[in-house]
Amino acid sequence: MSKHNFPPLKNDLFLRALKGESVERPPVWMMRQAGRYLPQYMKLREKYTFFERVETPELACEITIQPIDELEPDAAIIFSDILTVPQALNIDVQMIPGKGPVMGNPIRKVDDAFSIFAEDIPGKLSHVMDAITLTRHELNGRVPLIGFAGAPWTLFCYMVQGEGSKNFDLAKSFLYQHPEASRHVLKELTKATIDYLNAQIEAGAQAVQVFDSWAGLLSPDDFNEWALPSLMEITANVKGVPMILFAKGAWYALERLSYKSGVAALGLDWTISPEYARTHTADHVTLQGNFDPSHLLAPIPEIKLKTKRMIDRFGTQRYIANLGHGILPHVPVDHARAFVDTVKGYS
Amino acid sequence: MSKHNFPPLKNDLFLRALKGESVERPPVWMMRQAGRYLPQYMKLREKYTFFERVETPELACEITIQPIDELEPDAAIIFSDILTVPQALNIDVQMIPGKGPVMGNPIRKVDDAFSIFAEDIPGKLSHVMDAITLTRHELNGRVPLIGFAGAPWTLFCYMVQGEGSKNFDLAKSFLYQHPEASRHVLKELTKATIDYLNAQIEAGAQAVQVFDSWAGLLSPDDFNEWALPSLMEITANVKGVPMILFAKGAWYALERLSYKSGVAALGLDWTISPEYARTHTADHVTLQGNFDPSHLLAPIPEIKLKTKRMIDRFGTQRYIANLGHGILPHVPVDHARAFVDTVKGYS
Repeated sequence: MSKHNFPPLKNDLFLRALKGESVERPPVWMMRQAGRYLPQYMKLREKYTFFERVETPELACEITIQPIDELEPDAAIIFSDILTVPQALNIDVQMIPGKGPVMGNPIRKVDDAFSIFAEDIPGKLSHVMDAITLTRHELNGRVPLIGFAGAPWTLFCYMVQGEGSKNFDLAKSFLYQHPEASRHVLKELTKATIDYLNAQIEAGAQAVQVFDSWAGLLSPDDFNEWALPSLMEITANVKGVPMILFAKGAWYALERLSYKSGVAALGLDWTISPEYARTHTADHVTLQGNFDPSHLLAPIPEIKLKTKRMIDRFGTQRYIANLGHGILPHVPVDHARAFVDTVKGYS
Repeated sequence: MSKHNFPPLKNDLFLRALKGESVERPPVWMMRQAGRYLPQYMKLREKYTFFERVETPELACEITIQPIDELEPDAAIIFSDILTVPQALNIDVQMIPGKGPVMGNPIRKVDDAFSIFAEDIPGKLSHVMDAITLTRHELNGRVPLIGFAGAPWTLFCYMVQGEGSKNFDLAKSFLYQHPEASRHVLKELTKATIDYLNAQIEAGAQAVQVFDSWAGLLSPDDFNEWALPSLMEITANVKGVPMILFAKGAWYALERLSYKSGVAALGLDWTISPEYARTHTADHVTLQGNFDPSHLLAPIPEIKLKTKRMIDRFGTQRYIANLGHGILPHVPVDHARAFVDTVKGYS
């Protein structure tokens, strides 16, 4: 772990909250905090393509640290993308500005599915590990660094649909028409994700988050069959740092995830009330969330009130303040700062 | 009510289930059953634009009856669109094939919002009432005819966003930035919806369904503030026939909707298990749903098994079999038929 000889950590609030240790106030960070709402990010965006930014460790490092300089949250998350894993599985991913990800060779036939194999993911994505190691050094111990990956179900959605979608109908159809081929893809994705996250930890990630962004497209039964087994295998096989699991929309699975998955924390979207979340999760689980990102467009006094009220309801312990999904591109920086500062000033 | 002298109803299973009366088997229909998966619909789609189909009573009638002829479900729903009401409020709505609805003059400024007034909705949408009356006659009592409207929150989403969206970020931003202007729009939409549904009932609708398709974008608190009051006002002021309320994604509001709204039935999406729905709704409320539309892409034996299992879990009483959202365009007709026939053959 210490082969990298990283600088000592000065702010361990986030890690303490993850471990369930007592804290003076909740830590705070924001999903997609390194992103388009920041003018300094937009400057780099003009000069480099999306995957140049992701694949150049120096750029990924710089982008990761931008929000730390600007807003001083309690954790950094490495700038990358969940679609790096599909790329390492030979799926061609283009990021089209204004449209989002588009896959040149989506999985559409059974043969496509069975040609997916997870081999040497850490080697193929070594730029991510390099970015993590570099960022750990550059952060100089100011805050912990989070690594992340997409959950197999969510990656499957993109790899089959071939682009973003409201309902991922092609992906779900493929699942029900070709369950064995789908199971193969999910198995390889699970293996890839485990190897990837363990490599990120080896490279210096001090916590990891798994994003199951499209969990909420599945019925409870289908979630149990198609998403949960991968998540359980990942939580059982990723070692050394606390894990946060964010299964967006899977309100119905909170109990199972909290009692069975062994994760340190569960991320919550904003449709789940703090009271519901506390009632339906195990005592030892830290909760993370769940400010509606569009509330950051409200006037600043409103943001402060709503943020305070959120902490009042979650409580200050076993809690990490965050948004319920990624920050929106058109949020003024001052509004994001009001959110972060309100958490930091909470008493 | 009987000024139209409609033919007597031969199949009242759907209405009996709505009223909570005992039934031999659950009735079945499918949201968006008049639609693109039907070859006979596609033929009319080649000849007429979307709004020609909606605005010509003879075409709307023909399209409404197509699935009744083809699949023989237990209810018909008038072919129309929830965006007729925004049109009657002077919002220009174009339906772009492959993209969906686009508004030429979305609400983007406070002044835009305050210029919205609900005036003579039944007069402006008389083609819908004409279509309903004509269809009641043409159905010749085979099954009851359902009228419908979009819920004010969902219509607000489209009118502000200006098009479909994954998160309706512009609409939600407007809501939080301009609450008074938003309240005005929602108040006018509520008035329009009440007048519209009462006119549909007057014209011959034997039940009505309110679609709050984007309820699930709101937190529970925001749902209470921005969506629920309109729904309560609508349920209190629409008279004469049973109402079904489908607030997609609002699992957290089932209790409130069932105990407070006075509706005959609640529609459910497929993320809500039958057991959860029964536990969290009042005994007198009929439940409608909630087959995952993408399950209709599974092989037919699978569809039959899953449909049976759904009825096993909901029970045969106070239950209307349906999908959890609209049928997908690429579902083979035989698969839709397998769903309908399995319900009709349930014992």
